[in-house]
Amino acid sequence: MRKIYLEDTPLREAQEKIAKKVRFAPQIEYIPTAKALGRVTAEPIYAKVSMPNYHASAMDGIAVRAEKTFGADEQHPVRLKRGEDYVEVDTGDPIPDGFDAVIMIEYVHQVDEETIEILESVAPWQHIRPIGEDVVIGEVIVPAHHKLRPVDLGALLAGGNVTIPVYKKPRVVIIPTGSELIPPSEKVAEGEIIEFNGAVFAAYLEEWGAEPVIHSIVPDDCGLIREAVKSAVQDADLVLLNAGSSAGREDFTVHVVEELGEVLTHGVATRPGKPVVVGIVEGKPVIGLPGYPVSAYLNLEWFARSLIHRYYGVMENERQKIKATIGRRIVSVMGAEDFIRMTVGCIDGKYIANPLTRAAGVTMSMVRADGLLRISPGHLGYEQGETAEIELYRPLEQIHNTIVATGSHDLSMDVLHTLLRLVHPDRFLVSSHLGSMGGILAIQKGEAHIAGIHLFDEATGTYNQPFVEKYLPGKDVVLIQLVYRQQGWIVKPGNPLGIATVRDLVRPGVTYINRQRGAGTRLLLDYLLKQERIDQADIYGYSREAVSHLSVAAAVAGGTADVGLGIYSAAKAMGLDFIPVAEERYDLLMSGSFYRSEEGAQLLEIIRSPQFVQEVERLGGYNCRDSGSIIYISSHLSPT
Amino acid sequence: MRKIYLEDTPLREAQEKIAKKVRFAPQIEYIPTAKALGRVTAEPIYAKVSMPNYHASAMDGIAVRAEKTFGADEQHPVRLKRGEDYVEVDTGDPIPDGFDAVIMIEYVHQVDEETIEILESVAPWQHIRPIGEDVVIGEVIVPAHHKLRPVDLGALLAGGNVTIPVYKKPRVVIIPTGSELIPPSEKVAEGEIIEFNGAVFAAYLEEWGAEPVIHSIVPDDCGLIREAVKSAVQDADLVLLNAGSSAGREDFTVHVVEELGEVLTHGVATRPGKPVVVGIVEGKPVIGLPGYPVSAYLNLEWFARSLIHRYYGVMENERQKIKATIGRRIVSVMGAEDFIRMTVGCIDGKYIANPLTRAAGVTMSMVRADGLLRISPGHLGYEQGETAEIELYRPLEQIHNTIVATGSHDLSMDVLHTLLRLVHPDRFLVSSHLGSMGGILAIQKGEAHIAGIHLFDEATGTYNQPFVEKYLPGKDVVLIQLVYRQQGWIVKPGNPLGIATVRDLVRPGVTYINRQRGAGTRLLLDYLLKQERIDQADIYGYSREAVSHLSVAAAVAGGTADVGLGIYSAAKAMGLDFIPVAEERYDLLMSGSFYRSEEGAQLLEIIRSPQFVQEVERLGGYNCRDSGSIIYISSHLSPT
Repeated sequence: MRKIYLEDTPLREAQEKIAKKVRFAPQIEYIPTAKALGRVTAEPIYAKVSMPNYHASAMDGIAVRAEKTFGADEQHPVRLKRGEDYVEVDTGDPIPDGFDAVIMIEYVHQVDEETIEILESVAPWQHIRPIGEDVVIGEVIVPAHHKLRPVDLGALLAGGNVTIPVYKKPRVVIIPTGSELIPPSEKVAEGEIIEFNGAVFAAYLEEWGAEPVIHSIVPDDCGLIREAVKSAVQDADLVLLNAGSSAGREDFTVHVVEELGEVLTHGVATRPGKPVVVGIVEGKPVIGLPGYPVSAYLNLEWFARSLIHRYYGVMENERQKIKATIGRRIVSVMGAEDFIRMTVGCIDGKYIANPLTRAAGVTMSMVRADGLLRISPGHLGYEQGETAEIELYRPLEQIHNTIVATGSHDLSMDVLHTLLRLVHPDRFLVSSHLGSMGGILAIQKGEAHIAGIHLFDEATGTYNQPFVEKYLPGKDVVLIQLVYRQQGWIVKPGNPLGIATVRDLVRPGVTYINRQRGAGTRLLLDYLLKQERIDQADIYGYSREAVSHLSVAAAVAGGTADVGLGIYSAAKAMGLDFIPVAEERYDLLMSGSFYRSEEGAQLLEIIRSPQFVQEVERLGGYNCRDSGSIIYISSHLSPT
Repeated sequence: MRKIYLEDTPLREAQEKIAKKVRFAPQIEYIPTAKALGRVTAEPIYAKVSMPNYHASAMDGIAVRAEKTFGADEQHPVRLKRGEDYVEVDTGDPIPDGFDAVIMIEYVHQVDEETIEILESVAPWQHIRPIGEDVVIGEVIVPAHHKLRPVDLGALLAGGNVTIPVYKKPRVVIIPTGSELIPPSEKVAEGEIIEFNGAVFAAYLEEWGAEPVIHSIVPDDCGLIREAVKSAVQDADLVLLNAGSSAGREDFTVHVVEELGEVLTHGVATRPGKPVVVGIVEGKPVIGLPGYPVSAYLNLEWFARSLIHRYYGVMENERQKIKATIGRRIVSVMGAEDFIRMTVGCIDGKYIANPLTRAAGVTMSMVRADGLLRISPGHLGYEQGETAEIELYRPLEQIHNTIVATGSHDLSMDVLHTLLRLVHPDRFLVSSHLGSMGGILAIQKGEAHIAGIHLFDEATGTYNQPFVEKYLPGKDVVLIQLVYRQQGWIVKPGNPLGIATVRDLVRPGVTYINRQRGAGTRLLLDYLLKQERIDQADIYGYSREAVSHLSVAAAVAGGTADVGLGIYSAAKAMGLDFIPVAEERYDLLMSGSFYRSEEGAQLLEIIRSPQFVQEVERLGGYNCRDSGSIIYISSHLSPT
């Protein structure tokens, strides 16, 4: 039977191995300077002409002979004759022969058509741009290995360089492999996976200055993959295979590279990203990237990016780093370097970072990540409240301008986000879903600006406020009504099992999908069970947790559950049926400082706008009759 | 006669005026997701399919029924039958119907062909990627007004979005105006100026996500410019005119915009950048940019960049800012906002910033700038040693990796720079030219790592060392021999005035071009004059200062001087004749900490390499017989 053997090569060692082995010999091409933005110079480039290449007037005024003005002052004005003593010049005009200074038009007194008077003497070469003031012939304008910026193009053209020698872009051939892969499509059958890694690789490679070429999809066939690699190395500077880089039955990359060339590394000591193949075929680097998107993108950066920079002989720029407080405990194991995608928020002037899912298959975690936490192999992780360095994926000022939302997820939060970006393009809203109780805790710990909560209190029969009073006594917070929404049973189309009440959940053959602990929807279920005196253990699937309404609906749609509790819009999105159970209040809990901030005022204005009401109610299952009203405000505060 | 009247509108006010007046209505286009890197979404984009859209194995192993494994442990292994109890699956494979967990291949013990044994029970759904683990149908993948990054494209494709709605790129028409302008060329006649601003604008606009269109050059004719603007506003989102934005005789922009539409601002209170025209024609913003490159690029950023961001509804990212010590006094006048291009170096862990030329016509100052110092209208400037905030043009780590060179300029420094970049792509060398004495002072004040000096000491008849001992007593410095070079008279081809010795400089009709105070070449001249007992005042042109050998040669080539003292290679670059006067020693003075650093060792290795010798001697007028030898090392240090 198959066994998996991968090396645990330290990442840096693997990078050095390939760097030492590869000898790039980049070709040089001459291209028009005007088209050279972002290209890398292959030689130092010198000015071929001076700029200006004649003595030019630096002002609008008159060109004069300086010696003729000597001695002029208020008491002894000097008169000059047109044509003979002075000539009118505009900025940029050549200084006529025999003249050697310019007087600004403001200091010229017209006596008559042909005569002017001046009250001050001028120094020779005053207000003249001498030849070469900007660029002097023979001067180095840019060195070799320089990535050209807009201003460089200007200086190169000013110096008479119409075409310039740059390195050809390295050609990178991307070979997607996998019998389950299909080209991008809106329809996907079971067992098919959309090939999207290639597009991501190509986009990254373009950003790094390479020329990506995406090969057609190659099925999991060792012979076909071998042929594809053999032909790719002929005209590529770098070849990427994706996936098949591990050591499973259908992982052919390592065998192909072994046969055709040399495998330098198979497996690095990182998490995620371990199963990578780094090798050389006919002198060309060949990288076998793992199939899981996150692993693939990290390895792409570790290997392809640094090889491209090496090809050009330019420096790799690092991302900006900040120190942040870790909001939730992060456990790391010894021996592997961890790379953890993080959200980063700025709450009351303090950076708070929280881990996203560590599953390597979750592309969305890269989309949502604000930064990366790197934990070295000898480090066991971080306790909550410790400080760690985060490498930022987004500009720091975007993080400063981001409203950090957490708690329970609701689609009305997506509407709020969309409208916020529309009205205030420089504001962002980032949501993570920790459930209602998680939201209350996040506000308590200063880890979020706002939290969506919907917690039913059995004692009072009301929502949210009793929980805020209980868990955040004396804390400076404000509770705002966001929406009323229908909760109900999400069931398969036509409700084949005839689910109507909570009693139907314990019927034999009914599989339930629950929400995570702390979710308001789970509390609602527990309340319904208690009313009917049903034991949680009697519900098959009670312990299986989904983290959002959409995930519950997806489980029902996918057939792994028959019923779950959730909101109407989630059922609708998945084409499922919905049996209403209760209308609940979904509120926004916010810190007092956020409530009083400019961002807080902007958010509240949107919540109270007709557009918000219209967009939310259009989703179905919502009612916005009280949206934006203040439910609760800490006693020591007064509403503004 | 013409008079100049420009407003002094505060920059922010001018920006707000146009922002308030312009109403963009960007069109939406659907493009393939794979081609959407850097584009801006016009709507929130939702997942159309889940990813995965079936339950998939997350590991290589076997799919089982979890309940069949319950109770398994070391003492009670459970045996499973192939096909019936388990099926082999690879990562990504669909989980066959009726199976609900995956066991990793590592934990499977093969008993025979058809039987395996396991020693641990597994939980339902272990190692299964449920439907929608990555992307759930109906989920918002990216919001509207989002600039797409590589990972976003992956998530969009994973979610079944093959084409997506993005905003059309704003079309920006650039109209270069000026009768003196010619298209980029290697040959330029007197009175002609290469039109290069258009290429710089276009490159910036591309970086900012616009679609630039460069109009053909329009001569200084009000009617022709009017026609060009009238036609441009038909299909452009933004029109840029360059130049003619001031109030001179041939500055037509303000008149054209007045006639066709409305002028909102003519003149902002900035230095440089004052003469800008900001207006609206047929609802389209029209910006008249000044002709001087630096003024033009600053105004482009102030107006075009922010309008493009407004068009897209995205945030403008600011540049990174650092606090730096100001190395040289900077005077500002009240009433105008100053924008001063600065070099920034990191010396012994401290940032030092120095102003570059403030002339608005010097493109090279933008190429050389590491950052920008902004001085508000009410601020008088900075004294040496004060701290100021610098907005960086280059990544901070490049500045950390930059060797700051100053002192006298020599072409061997350019060779050194080129070889350094070649051997160590992550190192940079930035030179400013302050003359030899300026170099000694910079090392003294900790403002540079290295300084090129060539100072002849009359008392000892030797170079450099006496000056180091005199001005830097006890200071931790090292003096390294770089090159010997010929100094001589730079004269017109054929030496028409027959210059041979320093006595020829005082002949009537001979115009000299001198070097700036503190330059070693100037000290050499002074020594030669002293030997011959010639008074400086007897040399016509003694007080006119050029700041480099090339500038001296350019003055002779341009006809504003007959002779200057300089190096052979400068004469050669300009096609001039050279009469040798003396061989001098050009050394590198460096701080002890730099000498002992990794960068210092790298630099010294290059200086001592055969390649350096070969490249320098090829320039002519150089001898490298002692390059890299240590001339002087502070007494309390020993050579390493």
